[in-house]
Amino acid sequence: MAETMTFDGEALHLLDQRALPTEVRYLACRTADEVARAIKTLVVRGAPAIGVAAAFGMALAAKRAEESGGSIDQALESAHTILAASRPTAVNLFWALEQMQSARRAAGGTTGHTIVSALLAQARKIHDDDIASCRAMGEFGATLFPARARVLTHCNAGALATAGYGTALGVIRSAHRQGKIDRVFADETRPVLQGARLTAWELVNEGIPTTLITDSMAGFLMSHGEINCVVVGADRIAANGDVINKIGTYTVAVLAREHGIPFFVAAPRSTFDLATASGALVTIEERDPEEVVHWAGVRSAPAGVDVRNPAFDVTPAALVAAIICETGVARPPFGPDLVRLARLPLHSGRV
Amino acid sequence: MAETMTFDGEALHLLDQRALPTEVRYLACRTADEVARAIKTLVVRGAPAIGVAAAFGMALAAKRAEESGGSIDQALESAHTILAASRPTAVNLFWALEQMQSARRAAGGTTGHTIVSALLAQARKIHDDDIASCRAMGEFGATLFPARARVLTHCNAGALATAGYGTALGVIRSAHRQGKIDRVFADETRPVLQGARLTAWELVNEGIPTTLITDSMAGFLMSHGEINCVVVGADRIAANGDVINKIGTYTVAVLAREHGIPFFVAAPRSTFDLATASGALVTIEERDPEEVVHWAGVRSAPAGVDVRNPAFDVTPAALVAAIICETGVARPPFGPDLVRLARLPLHSGRV
Repeated sequence: MAETMTFDGEALHLLDQRALPTEVRYLACRTADEVARAIKTLVVRGAPAIGVAAAFGMALAAKRAEESGGSIDQALESAHTILAASRPTAVNLFWALEQMQSARRAAGGTTGHTIVSALLAQARKIHDDDIASCRAMGEFGATLFPARARVLTHCNAGALATAGYGTALGVIRSAHRQGKIDRVFADETRPVLQGARLTAWELVNEGIPTTLITDSMAGFLMSHGEINCVVVGADRIAANGDVINKIGTYTVAVLAREHGIPFFVAAPRSTFDLATASGALVTIEERDPEEVVHWAGVRSAPAGVDVRNPAFDVTPAALVAAIICETGVARPPFGPDLVRLARLPLHSGRV
Repeated sequence: MAETMTFDGEALHLLDQRALPTEVRYLACRTADEVARAIKTLVVRGAPAIGVAAAFGMALAAKRAEESGGSIDQALESAHTILAASRPTAVNLFWALEQMQSARRAAGGTTGHTIVSALLAQARKIHDDDIASCRAMGEFGATLFPARARVLTHCNAGALATAGYGTALGVIRSAHRQGKIDRVFADETRPVLQGARLTAWELVNEGIPTTLITDSMAGFLMSHGEINCVVVGADRIAANGDVINKIGTYTVAVLAREHGIPFFVAAPRSTFDLATASGALVTIEERDPEEVVHWAGVRSAPAGVDVRNPAFDVTPAALVAAIICETGVARPPFGPDLVRLARLPLHSGRV
């Protein structure tokens, strides 16, 4: 499958996810500004992928400053500001920016070249760790699936939402390799159709039996016994286990409980926001109304209608059966498990 | 507002709802075949409107047979078959066809001209009664709304789904005239977007404050207290009060109960299917997958993905607070009330 992003030492090449599934093309970003714009306009999306892209954005800012003889620290500060503003809800973004600031501090008062090298190495490490984390999550998560899983997923928490392999789709990939997947149902995920355009594309490329549905059909399929588990990703997980994820996730969770179907969340620890007590405290981004009233350049709604476009919602921890991260599985009441899993070194968990 | 359909004695002119909201154009149907095709291709949709259109289709079949010297009864039989097959779920269609067959039987062995006149008169009566029923429903239903209603509706149960005024939107219109509507939230209603294209268009034309949302946003708004009642139409109501309506309705009902919000259904008695014990016994139409994977001629999903496209779902009676029809309001356990209301003459109910 096409890589979500590659870095060639000079530029970050982002798979332009707006053009999928009809076209595979890359956008080269040579500056932090270009990376921030790519995040804002959904060239790259998905909380972990945003974090990795932002890390490369910081490294690029330092590199460009060094090349032009400017102040690396000023460039990093300015890059931090613009990248942090690119999407407010995903917490991985802030986590990655902090990792890069740490790497800068650790490099100390050395030469520009040394600082740039340290930042490039740190960004690459964040990229590689993200893939390793997804694989670990996949192994942990697959053990939770029923033997003949008919899995619903919402939005895209796939290879495209990460540096590779995916969170929720990573779990599905691992379960598929173990022969546990009967079928995946992908919510199309309006308004931006990440499910139709990205999730269906990833799964079909992988040869996993996949059925695309509109968001409004999940309840029908659950009531007919056609779905027996749900797995989604997350953009942020509060200290109490509340899950902030793509708009519509909350509805899926309510439906899952109504039908006695387990609702799993797969997300790396960079998604944990243990400083925020509950989901109610998280700012929910409202995006451009045009996403709702237009599609493919054709307007589908009359002039004069008001529009709401919240990009995320909050799924209360009470609706979540388990949160899968790269060091293990958190269970209700979540708080203690999240703290414990956040402290474990990678690959230390019991699978 | 543009009429849903008009009959000029020679042809049924259907507002082509596929072109809304960008274009108002009419399709003239001179034969039952043309009416059936218009129903199948969603030129006209909405259970009551389908019934009225089918009635005119039967009258047109008789008229064309008389003009060509053919057998009126053969023409009616053939029209009945093709119209009955046009959409299997809406029961109003079968009700209207039966009304037309009754009118034929009542006309007895008279001249072709007399039979055609009787059938034209019956179709016009079904048309006019439908509007009167919607207005009566509007009055009954508006009494159920809270004083400052923030109403969610799904799909289009409006003037466009009926001969005029609407069922669910008829209730909203009446409540708006009484000053009880703060705001209407319209689910866009994938895959065919009847909410975005039709409901929003009707309400904006009427000056009712309307906010368009994707189907996945209703749960978010309910959890933020922005919605305090729900009203939808129905394509069929079983004897136990189970409601068959546009795909996604069941999800809205589950969400409404989760948030303690009353879920109302407005539908004429021609929607009642008292011979069917429960919703589980109703055939749910699966429509063309293309509706899900294309929009405005652009494919949004990869080749090779499977698709489901059930057009309706079943909302169990247990999730319904009240069913509003033209002779009054049915309350749980529904069965006895539905039988009683079905027997009352129009305009006899207590508002």
